[in-house]
Amino acid sequence: MSPADQNASPAPTQTIHLSGGAGTAPEHESTGFTIWFTGLSGAGKSTITAILERELRQRGLRVEVLDGDVVRTNLSKGLGFSKEDRDTNILRIGWVCEVLSRNDVVAIAAAISPYREIRDQVRARIGRFVEVYVEAPLEVLADRDVKGLYRKAMAGEIKNFTGVDDPYEAPLDPEVVCYSDGRETPEQSANKVLAKLEELGYVAPTTGEHVLAAR
Amino acid sequence: MSPADQNASPAPTQTIHLSGGAGTAPEHESTGFTIWFTGLSGAGKSTITAILERELRQRGLRVEVLDGDVVRTNLSKGLGFSKEDRDTNILRIGWVCEVLSRNDVVAIAAAISPYREIRDQVRARIGRFVEVYVEAPLEVLADRDVKGLYRKAMAGEIKNFTGVDDPYEAPLDPEVVCYSDGRETPEQSANKVLAKLEELGYVAPTTGEHVLAAR
Repeated sequence: MSPADQNASPAPTQTIHLSGGAGTAPEHESTGFTIWFTGLSGAGKSTITAILERELRQRGLRVEVLDGDVVRTNLSKGLGFSKEDRDTNILRIGWVCEVLSRNDVVAIAAAISPYREIRDQVRARIGRFVEVYVEAPLEVLADRDVKGLYRKAMAGEIKNFTGVDDPYEAPLDPEVVCYSDGRETPEQSANKVLAKLEELGYVAPTTGEHVLAAR
Repeated sequence: MSPADQNASPAPTQTIHLSGGAGTAPEHESTGFTIWFTGLSGAGKSTITAILERELRQRGLRVEVLDGDVVRTNLSKGLGFSKEDRDTNILRIGWVCEVLSRNDVVAIAAAISPYREIRDQVRARIGRFVEVYVEAPLEVLADRDVKGLYRKAMAGEIKNFTGVDDPYEAPLDPEVVCYSDGRETPEQSANKVLAKLEELGYVAPTTGEHVLAAR
């Protein structure tokens, strides 16, 4: 017998229908949803996220950002960068997004999340899910990479670097594509996401110009 | 250089003050809080939790239950029952409670959480934290344990069983103590927690009798 079995309550004092518990949605329809940023390291996910977070909070929404690095510290210490470990990390972020989304919170995930299948698993579980692909060509990323990580990865000095010697599977049909190769500013990228959220009915439309566009 | 470094954005396109992100509290004061149930396996944590969850939802609050078993599936697969792994599991549950609590959600954790120091760490991080100790003597638990897990642990057939061959450190100064040795019903236990929540100002007091007491 596994020690894990000890966590099962051996004998409840009475039978009670569990009205909830982790994994059970609240009875009302949640106003929450998840915005999932995916893209290569340095593509600008965190930058756009920060603008979007501020804007959504100014509109009175509850917003929580799940940053890939922060989550690795809090939820996934010890995990590495194998496909399995990356998948586990993304599924954990996805689960936290799910729990937040069903409690009227806007969860924003900003993580490389290289594998399409896992992102789609998370999407299927959450339902109200807006995938934002932050696209930038590898050369652009390498050129503006002041730490030179991309060049080191290209030279083989760093291993398991997504987009270089580790796969990145771009979304096939994301709700939004942001271009961080100079074609648009981070504010414009954030605005595209806001426009999509309004179109989907997830946030109330502003009257006239977008706040960000007016700045 | 560690592959983890690749997650640091090599070169942000511009400097933007991150207004939030995981680890950053929203600007308003949250109405959320955490109720933390601790106690031996089979003591009745889940039973009281389910009653409390239903009642708080009926009062219009957002409630999310973090059950120790469910969290082990979603956040802590692969962790065992060493002190280190138990601590990691509890800190992860605590982090999710923290994220929920700062977004106006009532997080209810129901996990053995045997170590005082770790519970106190979680308490310190969350702030609005109500610890509920569900107390029951080992003999009572063993007697009503239909699966016989306690007896097997006592016979040495199961290892690392909290309260038998693995430590359980009872809270020194919990906000609420519930007795599941027959002295009170689960409804009475849930009512004690509700009364404490009202006393702390975390939930609005009901007029007259508690709803549960009237049932």
